[in-house]
Amino acid sequence: MNILDNIRVVLVEPIFGGNIGSVCRAINNNGISDLAIVNPRPTIDWEDARRLTCNAKAQLEARKEFQTLEEAVADCTVVAGTSARTGFYRDTAYSPREFAPIALESAADRKIALVFGREDKGLFNEELALCTHIIQIPSSGLYTSLNLAQAVMVCCYEMFVAADVFEPAEEKAEEASSELRERMFALWREMMIKTEFTHGQKLDHMMMGLRRIFTRGKLTVPDAKILMGLAKQSLWVKQQWDKAERKNND
Amino acid sequence: MNILDNIRVVLVEPIFGGNIGSVCRAINNNGISDLAIVNPRPTIDWEDARRLTCNAKAQLEARKEFQTLEEAVADCTVVAGTSARTGFYRDTAYSPREFAPIALESAADRKIALVFGREDKGLFNEELALCTHIIQIPSSGLYTSLNLAQAVMVCCYEMFVAADVFEPAEEKAEEASSELRERMFALWREMMIKTEFTHGQKLDHMMMGLRRIFTRGKLTVPDAKILMGLAKQSLWVKQQWDKAERKNND
Repeated sequence: MNILDNIRVVLVEPIFGGNIGSVCRAINNNGISDLAIVNPRPTIDWEDARRLTCNAKAQLEARKEFQTLEEAVADCTVVAGTSARTGFYRDTAYSPREFAPIALESAADRKIALVFGREDKGLFNEELALCTHIIQIPSSGLYTSLNLAQAVMVCCYEMFVAADVFEPAEEKAEEASSELRERMFALWREMMIKTEFTHGQKLDHMMMGLRRIFTRGKLTVPDAKILMGLAKQSLWVKQQWDKAERKNND
Repeated sequence: MNILDNIRVVLVEPIFGGNIGSVCRAINNNGISDLAIVNPRPTIDWEDARRLTCNAKAQLEARKEFQTLEEAVADCTVVAGTSARTGFYRDTAYSPREFAPIALESAADRKIALVFGREDKGLFNEELALCTHIIQIPSSGLYTSLNLAQAVMVCCYEMFVAADVFEPAEEKAEEASSELRERMFALWREMMIKTEFTHGQKLDHMMMGLRRIFTRGKLTVPDAKILMGLAKQSLWVKQQWDKAERKNND
């Protein structure tokens, strides 16, 4: 199996059919064929898309469509979101070149995703939250917003070049899928609320921070299970406390 | 001065206005602003071009137009042509990543050019002949033909990334410009014909070989002058011979 077959390119609510077609051609040039579109708009000009695919009509026809990003990346280990903006929670962004070997390490035996946002608004914070890595494409200070298909081109090109020289590590624990990770984060969120650790907007910020911390390295299935165990334990302690309080008030 | 200001992107007879616009956006994203178009077709849809420039309208408006590639690169030292095809005289192709530091070395104090061919037919052999380097963008075996703007994107992205970490060498002899190089090659060609070294199609092949040999390293102004001197000397010897022959026949 070719390692590039494990790379999924995910477009979130793209606006222009032409861009979708150009994306097909770009991934095809780089040996990638798994294309997913999240919540495709009814206004997409599919004729325009077809016209720009060039030799990559098969990629367009074989695309998968999902209602949410969560579903589109559920079976993926590494999920990398691209963002032109810097700042809050984006400080730990990787360049496509730094990111490529990290992604290939995981793509050796599991699916990974490269996620690209809308042409006008990019990815929303709740979408970036689903990502284990944030990729920022180096670009000139004044004009950081890249054309969608060109952003896909640069990322896939870096994957393609890196795959050529890539040798996977010998052995490793199974990596956590997005679905497992999200169950884990849901538990931690519940724990933070119930233990009254924090709440409201602060809770959201805290969750973003935790997501970065837990996904900075490679999170394995055993890691996720340990972290879920910890959260469950805290929730159990809180329950015991509540019970004790009720008993006291009786 | 920014080293990227010394990089000129040259499009030879592009067909689609949309691609020209996308090229403007791509070079702009990578801090490049010098765009030249060789022999612009009357059928170019400039409205389409403007629509796709995004924030890079200035690059489109400031474009220079030339009748020939020769004129478009006359003041450039390194002239790199992109080609999707492999084979004859293309064996010594560089990847954009290998090429970037070579180009920046020259761009530190002189203009260099990245040349891109027509969407359908690429660069012709006589255009590749004007180039000191050939760039081949790595791509999947089956689909080597990239969209024009995406090819520009990859090359300019590599230049931008390399420029970030680039430190020019301390001192060096002035590099030969395209104009000087072409005068030199013209002399060598004349010499090869007049000395009856070779002729016809074989001469063209031989010239291509010489072009590769003389531009593999960095050709300086003194180098070019030495080579011109050699050719002139051979021509002079031939003249002397002819004179001697005429004398003999008198």
